[in-house]
Amino acid sequence: MSATHSAEQSERPGRIMSGEMAEQPEVLRRILDQGAPRIRSVAEAIAARGPRFVLLTARGTSDNAALYAKYLLEIRLGLPCGLTSMSTTTAYGATPDLRDVLVVTVSQSGGSPDLVASTRAAREAGAVTLAVTNNPDSPLAAVSEFHIDVLAGPEKALPATKTYTASLLALYLLVEGLGGGDGSPAQVLPDLAARILGRRDEVRQLASRYRFAERMVITSRGYGYPTAKEAALKLMETSYIPALSYSGADLLHGPLAMVDNISPVIAVVTDGKGGEALRPVLDRLRGRGADLVVIGPAAQVAGASAGFVLPTEGVPEELQPILEILPLQLLAYEVTIARGQDPDAPRALAKITETR
Amino acid sequence: MSATHSAEQSERPGRIMSGEMAEQPEVLRRILDQGAPRIRSVAEAIAARGPRFVLLTARGTSDNAALYAKYLLEIRLGLPCGLTSMSTTTAYGATPDLRDVLVVTVSQSGGSPDLVASTRAAREAGAVTLAVTNNPDSPLAAVSEFHIDVLAGPEKALPATKTYTASLLALYLLVEGLGGGDGSPAQVLPDLAARILGRRDEVRQLASRYRFAERMVITSRGYGYPTAKEAALKLMETSYIPALSYSGADLLHGPLAMVDNISPVIAVVTDGKGGEALRPVLDRLRGRGADLVVIGPAAQVAGASAGFVLPTEGVPEELQPILEILPLQLLAYEVTIARGQDPDAPRALAKITETR
Repeated sequence: MSATHSAEQSERPGRIMSGEMAEQPEVLRRILDQGAPRIRSVAEAIAARGPRFVLLTARGTSDNAALYAKYLLEIRLGLPCGLTSMSTTTAYGATPDLRDVLVVTVSQSGGSPDLVASTRAAREAGAVTLAVTNNPDSPLAAVSEFHIDVLAGPEKALPATKTYTASLLALYLLVEGLGGGDGSPAQVLPDLAARILGRRDEVRQLASRYRFAERMVITSRGYGYPTAKEAALKLMETSYIPALSYSGADLLHGPLAMVDNISPVIAVVTDGKGGEALRPVLDRLRGRGADLVVIGPAAQVAGASAGFVLPTEGVPEELQPILEILPLQLLAYEVTIARGQDPDAPRALAKITETR
Repeated sequence: MSATHSAEQSERPGRIMSGEMAEQPEVLRRILDQGAPRIRSVAEAIAARGPRFVLLTARGTSDNAALYAKYLLEIRLGLPCGLTSMSTTTAYGATPDLRDVLVVTVSQSGGSPDLVASTRAAREAGAVTLAVTNNPDSPLAAVSEFHIDVLAGPEKALPATKTYTASLLALYLLVEGLGGGDGSPAQVLPDLAARILGRRDEVRQLASRYRFAERMVITSRGYGYPTAKEAALKLMETSYIPALSYSGADLLHGPLAMVDNISPVIAVVTDGKGGEALRPVLDRLRGRGADLVVIGPAAQVAGASAGFVLPTEGVPEELQPILEILPLQLLAYEVTIARGQDPDAPRALAKITETR
C-alpha cells in the first residue's frame, strides 16, 4: 500500500507473502520460547475470575483463529462459546449483561475501530476482556484488561499467514493455561512446520489442477473446520477463485448440489475424531465422482484423487490445524502465480489506492 | 424424492417450490392467529428460568433463522448468544456446563439425529431446551423441554422457503414474549408479504441479469445479514451459482478482491441501523464499478444499478428480514428457470437417488 510496498512488489510477484510464510517455524518457536510464560500468567489470572461463557470477536483471518479457539474452549474446557455479531454493539448499541463472560478479541493489527469500540463496551458491561494481537502498542491492547502478543513480527503481505498460525498457537497455549496444561505437545510444531513448508514442489503440482478452476469447495469437520474457512479466504484473497467452505455436515444439507466434476473439493481431514466424522461425507463425494484432494494423514490421501500428506503422528488433533493450513497457504500462493497474478497485490486494495 | 414427488416434478419445473413460496402470507397469518398464544406461554415459562446465555443449534436454512434469533436476543434482550459447533458434542463428546443457558434448536423436520443427540446432551448438562420445528411429533420436539410449532404445513420442495419465514416469525414472537412485548408490529406482515410475492414480473426482470453469472456476492449488515446468507444458500441450492455471502464489514477485509464487473453484488439494505452501517460499503462497491442490486427501501434502490423496492414503512427493522427474503427466494427460483433447470430437483439429491 505504501511506496516501499510497491517497490518490493515489483521485484518478484508474491515475494512478501512467500517470505512471511517461510518465517512461520521461527515464529512458532519464538512463541513457545519467549511468549509462553506470559500467556500462562494471563491464563492463570483469567482462570481465577472463573468465566462461565466466552465470546470471541474478530474479523477475516482472525475470525478463523477465533473459531479454532471456540472448538478448543468447548471441547477441552466445556466452556460454552459464541462468536460476536459485532454490529449488535457498534450499530445497534446493544448492552448485554456480560458478568461471568470472557470476551476474547483477536486482531492482527489491534487497530480496527469497531473492534476497539466493541471490546470497550464489553469491558464496561462487566466482561473480562482479553486482546490477542500482533501489536502490544495497539488501541485494542490498551482498551483490554489482558493482552497476549502473538510475536509474529511485522506482517506486510495483504494475505495474512504468519499471524494466523501465531494466533492459533497463542490461543492453544491460553486454553492449555486455563485448563492447567503445560502446552508441551506443541514443542514438535516448529520442526514439522519447517518440513511441510519445504515441500513446495508437491504443492505446485496440486496447484496446476486449479489453474483454470472457476470455483472450489473446501470442507472439513471439527478442529479442521477453521482451516477450511481460512483456506477458502486465502484462495479468494489471492487468486479470486470463489472458494466456498462448509462443514461436512452442512455440505450435505444443500450445497452438495454445486459439487460435481467442475467444482473440485478440498477436504481437510484431521487425524482424530473430526476426520472420522468427515468420512461419510468423503464417501458421498467419491460416489458423486468429485475431484477430491485431501490434506491429511497418508491413509486418507490414498483414497482421494490427490493430496498432501500431513505428518500427524504424535501431534494431538487439536494442534493439527497449525500444520494443516501451511500447504493450503502455499496452495493459494502457487495457484495465484500459476494464474499469472501477484499474491502480494490483491486487486481490490490496489484499485482503492488508484482511486484516491 | 418419493415417487409422488417425481410425478409432481414432471408437471412443471419448480411447481412445488413455487406453490410453497406462495403459501407464505397464509402461514404468517396462521402463526399470528393460532400460534402466538402458545409461543407466548412458552416464552413466559422460559423467562421464569432466567437464562443468562443462549446457544442456538441448527443447520442449513434453519441456521440462518437461528442467526436472525441471535441478533434479536442480543439487541433486544441483551442476552449474549452463540451458535453451536455441533461436532463438539456429537464427535468430540464435549460436556459443557450449561446451567443458566437456554439452548434453542431450530429444525424444519426435527428429525436430524445429530440435532436430537446434541439437544439431549444439552438438557442433561443443565440447559433449558427449546425446539423450534415444523413437526410437533418429531424426535427433536420429544427430547426438548419446550417446543414451538412453526405451523408451516408439510414442506415438500427441497429448497426450504415457507419454513424459513415461519421460523423467523416464531422466533420473533418468542423474543417478544421473553421481553414482555405483544408482537403486534408483526400484524402487518401477511398483507405485505402477499404484495411482494405478487411482484414476480419485477423479479423475473432482475433474474435475467444473472442468467449467465458465474458467481455472485451477497452482502448486508445487522438484521439483514441472515437474509444475505439465506439468499446465497437458496441461489446455490437451486441454480448452483456459487453465491458468497459476507457481512459488509467482512467484505472489506479481503473478499472485496473478488468483486468486479464480473461478480455482481446483491445488497440487502434494511431500513434502519443495519442499512446505515452498510452505506460506506455500498459507496466502496459503487466506486469500484460493481454491478450492485439493492433489496431495500426506495431511496437505496435508486442509488443502485437495479433493485427491488421493499415496503418498509411502519415495519420495524427487526421484522424486515421476514419480507426481505421473499424477493430473493423468487429470484433464486426465476434464475434457475432462466438457466433451464428445475428448482424442485437439485442435482445432488437426484444423483444420489440414481446411484442407490
